[in-house]
Amino acid sequence: MYKIAMGPSTKIYPMPTLLVGADVAGRPNFMTVAWGGIVNADPPMIAVAIRTSRHTHKGISQNRTFSVNVPSVDLVKETDYCGISSGAKVNKVEACQFKIFYGKLGTAPLIEQCPINQECKVVHTLELGSHTLFVGQIEETHVSENCLTKGKIDVNKIKPIAYIAEPAQQYLALGEVLGKAFRIGLELK
Amino acid sequence: MYKIAMGPSTKIYPMPTLLVGADVAGRPNFMTVAWGGIVNADPPMIAVAIRTSRHTHKGISQNRTFSVNVPSVDLVKETDYCGISSGAKVNKVEACQFKIFYGKLGTAPLIEQCPINQECKVVHTLELGSHTLFVGQIEETHVSENCLTKGKIDVNKIKPIAYIAEPAQQYLALGEVLGKAFRIGLELK
Repeated sequence: MYKIAMGPSTKIYPMPTLLVGADVAGRPNFMTVAWGGIVNADPPMIAVAIRTSRHTHKGISQNRTFSVNVPSVDLVKETDYCGISSGAKVNKVEACQFKIFYGKLGTAPLIEQCPINQECKVVHTLELGSHTLFVGQIEETHVSENCLTKGKIDVNKIKPIAYIAEPAQQYLALGEVLGKAFRIGLELK
Repeated sequence: MYKIAMGPSTKIYPMPTLLVGADVAGRPNFMTVAWGGIVNADPPMIAVAIRTSRHTHKGISQNRTFSVNVPSVDLVKETDYCGISSGAKVNKVEACQFKIFYGKLGTAPLIEQCPINQECKVVHTLELGSHTLFVGQIEETHVSENCLTKGKIDVNKIKPIAYIAEPAQQYLALGEVLGKAFRIGLELK
């Protein structure tokens, strides 16, 4: 197999599509983030990379809290809108008709329409260059009741959105199940 | 919509499925990681969260380099195997019949069969509790020639694997295109 060296570039597939929320000057704002994910089990932590110029960056820096909301496929337009507009100029909550609620942290706005909402308290901050990596301890997780099956979260009801940057920047649904994790690899043992 | 508070828990959907590589005591080893992603654009950086007890953790700590390899759906068994076996006990490269090559860093082993390979040099380390977050600057990206279309990376040829933890721990393929990013949200403007 022939390999092409492309120089240093950010090529990971797939990425999640998340709505990161923060109160900025007392008003809830959200931005779309593909550069985020879980980084610790005990205690549970999420990290999100936010470009330093972003409006949401101000809010997280001010309050040291943020939210991570997982949108479902029926929110794909709203999700994209939050990535291409700035809270410095528009009220995204109004434009997207998001219903907002707050949990135990008080300054991490949560979107009712998103099936999963996580409240995070900043515990580490890394200035990496173009982006700041905010590492947040997850203080509470809220789940829409209609996304549970027998009391357990069901991804078939969440219908999350994957983000892919190449060849085009696109949002994708999840497809067929390839196999059970921690199981199908046993065939090689 | 009724929300259920589930307590602090790590609920992000979807996650990527990555093979993180390191030389451990001079021998290439790989582990499966869903807790990893891009964290900076300029310079390009990746972060991976590795449980401190893992064999791969030793190698990254020793060499201060690691690789991130993106497997495709046809490697799903090998990918799972690398998550359920330990390099302290078995030679995963032999078991998976991986062909290994090295790039400019010399100590970050790369898997030829994976369409994307990234060489990373550790620039930050955060001890978070159960896991260490290694932030690596991407020094080089290698792409399999047969995953390019007109010289650009084509995700339809990469066929990456998504990981989902609920309701079952499963690997999934990507599905239908929901829309173009930085475009479909314009309808709300």
